[in-house]
Amino acid sequence: MRNIKLLIAFDGTAYSGWQRQKGPPTIQGVLEDRIAIMTGGPVTLHGAGRTDAGVHALGMVANFHTAAKIPCRGFMKGLNSLLPDDIKILGLEDAPTGFHARFSACGKTYLYQAVTVPVIMPVKRLYYSHFPGEFNFSRMNEALALLIGEHDFSSFEAAGSRDPQIKRGRGAVRRIFAARVTPLVDDSGFMVMIHGDGFLRHMVRNIVGTLVEVGIGKKNVDNFAKILYCRNRFAAGATAPACGLFLREVFY
Amino acid sequence: MRNIKLLIAFDGTAYSGWQRQKGPPTIQGVLEDRIAIMTGGPVTLHGAGRTDAGVHALGMVANFHTAAKIPCRGFMKGLNSLLPDDIKILGLEDAPTGFHARFSACGKTYLYQAVTVPVIMPVKRLYYSHFPGEFNFSRMNEALALLIGEHDFSSFEAAGSRDPQIKRGRGAVRRIFAARVTPLVDDSGFMVMIHGDGFLRHMVRNIVGTLVEVGIGKKNVDNFAKILYCRNRFAAGATAPACGLFLREVFY
Repeated sequence: MRNIKLLIAFDGTAYSGWQRQKGPPTIQGVLEDRIAIMTGGPVTLHGAGRTDAGVHALGMVANFHTAAKIPCRGFMKGLNSLLPDDIKILGLEDAPTGFHARFSACGKTYLYQAVTVPVIMPVKRLYYSHFPGEFNFSRMNEALALLIGEHDFSSFEAAGSRDPQIKRGRGAVRRIFAARVTPLVDDSGFMVMIHGDGFLRHMVRNIVGTLVEVGIGKKNVDNFAKILYCRNRFAAGATAPACGLFLREVFY
Repeated sequence: MRNIKLLIAFDGTAYSGWQRQKGPPTIQGVLEDRIAIMTGGPVTLHGAGRTDAGVHALGMVANFHTAAKIPCRGFMKGLNSLLPDDIKILGLEDAPTGFHARFSACGKTYLYQAVTVPVIMPVKRLYYSHFPGEFNFSRMNEALALLIGEHDFSSFEAAGSRDPQIKRGRGAVRRIFAARVTPLVDDSGFMVMIHGDGFLRHMVRNIVGTLVEVGIGKKNVDNFAKILYCRNRFAAGATAPACGLFLREVFY
């Protein structure tokens, strides 16, 4: 059996997230169905993570096993011709037998994009959140710096989302390697980049939701620190909208 | 009567272009209908130009006359709340009596965005054309330099598109102030910027369609010059797709 590794980009606007479900279209569902056409039989796709409804990906990774002998180049080309315009394969290769897109991953980078000017450009509406206001980026970067290192991120975890298979005994503890906010090149908003060894459900969106309150001065950096350390979801801000979030890269 | 000037941005994906038509939704049609709700009576909107179906705008300008006394700030806010997410007002002000969005314009800048890597990122598909291949930007810039100055652009005009009201006696003669191609910041393609005193129907898209042939080496810079000077639409390349084109700014 071959173990095929895919590098995938998608526009999550039209999908109910990654994970296959009965009913609404999902990224995993569409990919498995199209791969099955190529391989001639059903496949199970293992994604590096389960993105939520509306979240985008520039570099999702997934793997599946198949006995199909199609060469990689033709496989990728054929699969892309079967896929809709909002899901595309950027790379397809044979991976070592033991490779698993989720369990082999050692880190991920997420981007979160937001517009802060009063009126959001229509051509940005699908890929940026809109938080109109005056933002203090240096205060936001001070808050983000507190996340670096190993912490219990319960305050930023979606309520009732425990999944023992994903947590692997670490509870809500994750390690953040880097986190920073930068202004958009056209000065119309900001982009948050977070690189960590793993992320809880809604973690980036909950961090951004709270970070926005720091940026506009509704909360200060001390408040942000207390929210992180109290390990209580109800202390943090609202979950930022899905459309601004991008899974940029998965590291192995 | 007030003469109100609007600065408008829109995502043209869902529209049959600017100009009001019976049947399919157009930018002018949606704007006129929503403005009429604010003013309490029908208005005629004069746009700086008539963008084609699928073309986007970052800074379209239009004007209309009304007796309505609503202050500008509230007018803009109210109008934006009535407009769909893909059409937004970026500015609204009282203009001098003689101001006319089309006849007062002295120039426009258009952008054309294209991706040249083998697979286009799904999140770019609505705002970039896809021309996979190896492009020579310096050769493309040599070709674009030929456009600068006053020329008869018949070779790049949509066949059968004469409109005597727009041409105002100049025929197909237009002046180009600047034209250049630059690589995208992520190196996945290019962006063409063209600034001129006016543009014929499909002119930018026809220039880009021919420029692409120069970029990939199918035509050379001499061929491009001959196409421009022969003033014959059939000599030029195909019309580049609408989704990559943006009206960026109108100058007065």
